[in-house]
Amino acid sequence: MKNRLEKLKSWMKANEADVVMLQTRANVFFTTGFDTDPHERLVASCFFLDQDPLIICPGMEVNQVEGIFGKGDVLGYSDTDNPWKMIEKAWNERTSSVKKIAVERGLSWERLKALQSAFPHASFKEVDEALESARLIKDDEEVTLLKEAAALADFGVKAGVSALQEGISEMEVLASIEYELKKKGVREMAFSTMVLFGEKAGDPHGNPGSRRLQKGDAVLFDLGVIWKGYASDITRTVFFDHVKESDQAIYETVLTAQSKALAICKPGTAIGDLDKAARGWIEEKGYKDFFPHRLGHGLGIEVHEFPSMHAKNTDPLQEGMTFTIEPGIYLPNQAGVRIEDDVYITKDGYETFTKYPKELQIISSSAEV
Amino acid sequence: MKNRLEKLKSWMKANEADVVMLQTRANVFFTTGFDTDPHERLVASCFFLDQDPLIICPGMEVNQVEGIFGKGDVLGYSDTDNPWKMIEKAWNERTSSVKKIAVERGLSWERLKALQSAFPHASFKEVDEALESARLIKDDEEVTLLKEAAALADFGVKAGVSALQEGISEMEVLASIEYELKKKGVREMAFSTMVLFGEKAGDPHGNPGSRRLQKGDAVLFDLGVIWKGYASDITRTVFFDHVKESDQAIYETVLTAQSKALAICKPGTAIGDLDKAARGWIEEKGYKDFFPHRLGHGLGIEVHEFPSMHAKNTDPLQEGMTFTIEPGIYLPNQAGVRIEDDVYITKDGYETFTKYPKELQIISSSAEV
Repeated sequence: MKNRLEKLKSWMKANEADVVMLQTRANVFFTTGFDTDPHERLVASCFFLDQDPLIICPGMEVNQVEGIFGKGDVLGYSDTDNPWKMIEKAWNERTSSVKKIAVERGLSWERLKALQSAFPHASFKEVDEALESARLIKDDEEVTLLKEAAALADFGVKAGVSALQEGISEMEVLASIEYELKKKGVREMAFSTMVLFGEKAGDPHGNPGSRRLQKGDAVLFDLGVIWKGYASDITRTVFFDHVKESDQAIYETVLTAQSKALAICKPGTAIGDLDKAARGWIEEKGYKDFFPHRLGHGLGIEVHEFPSMHAKNTDPLQEGMTFTIEPGIYLPNQAGVRIEDDVYITKDGYETFTKYPKELQIISSSAEV
Repeated sequence: MKNRLEKLKSWMKANEADVVMLQTRANVFFTTGFDTDPHERLVASCFFLDQDPLIICPGMEVNQVEGIFGKGDVLGYSDTDNPWKMIEKAWNERTSSVKKIAVERGLSWERLKALQSAFPHASFKEVDEALESARLIKDDEEVTLLKEAAALADFGVKAGVSALQEGISEMEVLASIEYELKKKGVREMAFSTMVLFGEKAGDPHGNPGSRRLQKGDAVLFDLGVIWKGYASDITRTVFFDHVKESDQAIYETVLTAQSKALAICKPGTAIGDLDKAARGWIEEKGYKDFFPHRLGHGLGIEVHEFPSMHAKNTDPLQEGMTFTIEPGIYLPNQAGVRIEDDVYITKDGYETFTKYPKELQIISSSAEV
C-alpha cells in the first residue's frame, strides 16, 4: 500500500496535481484497502502532496473505514448532508490553493460539475493512467489473493461438474455452484455465473435458464469470485455422457488455440501476438467467423481491467501482469466451446492460477459415479 | 413501452433536444426492454425526434437486442472498432444537425469528451429528470413484476428462517437462501444478501461471515432479487430460541415506527413526513442516536432509485410510487433490528408487496421443528 501511495505522489508531482480524487470502488480499494459498494452514494479517497489522505463516505461506514485506513482522516456524511460542501472545506484546509484536480475519466458529469462549482478556478486532469499502470503489475500480496480467488473458481467448476445429471436445469447447476462457494465464505461472484447446455453454449453471451441436460450436451461453465477484493474468471467446457464428433473437433481446436497463446507468454511478447496466435489456429481450422471476441482481458481488483488482450495491442507483456486467455468457438444454435485461464507473467514465462484440468472430459451419466 | 417513448419525445420537443443518448443499464432497459450489464463496454439507446431509435452495443449482443427491440436499428461494434465514430456517423445520417444532446448526469467525463469531440458545436443537457419522472410512477406491467420480485424476497426470508440451527454460520444461511432462490430461476440478487447474527446486526452495514448462531441471537435478513428487470428488497429480524428483553423492546419500537409511517401512506402525504413519523417514535422511545439512516428509498428497475425517503423531502406521495420503508435501531456491538417492506401507493392508500409476517418471531432451536 505504501508503495502504491508513493507512486501516486510521484505522479502528482510530475503532473502538478494539487489533489487526486478517486471514487470508483476499485481505485478506492486499491489506494486505501477499504472495499465498499456505495451504490449511488459518494465514497472518495483524496490525496494531497504534503498532507495525509482523506476519505469521505456515508456516516454509517466511518467505523469500518477507520478500522482499515491507517493514516488519514475520515469524513462521514449523512443522507441530508451535502458531501461536496464538505469536500470544498476539507480540501481548502489542506492546500493553500486548489489549482489542478486529478480525477478518474469515469467520473460522472454531475460530480465533475459539483467539483467545478466548488473550485471554479481549478483545471482538471485524468488520473487513470497513473492508476492503471500501478494496478497493471501485481505485487506479492495481490498475487496471493489472485491465486486464492482462482482456486475458488476451480472449486466452482468442480462443484458444477459434480452437480451434472440428466434432466437437471442450467439454473439448478448454477445454484449448486454458488451454494458451495458461499459456504466457503465467498460473498460475491465476480460476474453472473454462466452455465449453458448444448446449443445454448453457441451464444457467447447466453443466459442460463431452464434448459435441461441431455446426453451428448456440451456444458459450458464460466464463473469467478471476488475474494478479499480480487477477482478470478475461469471457463471450462465438458461433455455429458458422450461427445459428438463435431463438438470434439471444436474442443480440440480451442484447446490448441489456447496452448498456442500460452506458449508465447513471457515478458517482451507483444500482447496482440497472443490473440493472433490463437486466432490464427482457429482460422486455419475453418472457424474464422465463430470467434467473435478478443482473446482475453486483464484481471485484478476488477474482472475486466488492463491490459486488453486484443490483436491490435502492441504493448509488451511484463512480469507481474495478470490476465485471461479465453479463446472460443460458437456455432449459433448448435454448440459452443470456450476454455479460459487466469494467467500470470513470471520473470521468464507464465503461470496459470486456474488449474482445473483441460483435457476433454466426458462426464458419466450414471448416477453412481 | 410505447407510452414511455412518447413521454420522452414530448420532453425532447419541450427541451429542443435533437438526440437523447442513454447508457446506464437501467435507462437502456426502461426505454428498450434490453437488459444487459456491459461492464466497461458501451451500450447506448439513442432517440431522435423524427427517426426510429437506435441501439449501439457489442457485436456479440446484436442478436439478443434484435429479438427484443421492435422498431429501430441495432449497431454492433467489435472490440477493435471505435463506437464513437459509429455514433457520429449514425446520428449525422438521422438528423440534419446535432445542436443539442441530452445525456445522463452519470455519463462519464470520458464519454462526454468523446461526444464533444464528435459534435463540437453541440450543447449538452441533462435528461435525468425526464427519466426519473417517467420511472417514478409504475405502470401495470411494472407492478406485476415488482410483486413477483417481492414474493421471491419473501420466499428468500422463509428459506433463511428454515436454515437456522444452532451453530450454523451467517454465510451458510446466506448460501441456503441464494441456493433456493436460484433454483427458482433468480439469476441476480438485487444487492449483497445480508444475514447477521446477534451483536453483528448492530452494524447497519455489517458483512456476513463466520459468526455462528447461538440461542438468544437476533437474526437479521436483508435481501432482494432482480426479477425480469425489477428489484425487491426486504428486511426481517427474527430471534433464535428466545428473545432478550432488551431486544424485544427494540423490536417493538421498530415495528411500531414502521406502522406509523405506513399509516400515513397515501397520495398527497409529504414524503418527509413518513421519515418523521417513524423517527419521532424511535426518538420518543429513547433511541434517537441509533437510527442513522433515511427511512427508505425508491424501488423499481434499480434497488435504489427515486423517491428518496428522507425527512427533508417535501414532494407528495403519488399513486404508482414504489419504495421501501425500513426503520432500524442499531446498538453497536450489541444488537440490531430492521424491518423493511416494499410499499406501493394506491389511489387512496398503500399496499405492501412484501408479505412475510412481522409479528415478533421466535424460531425454535429444536431440530424437529
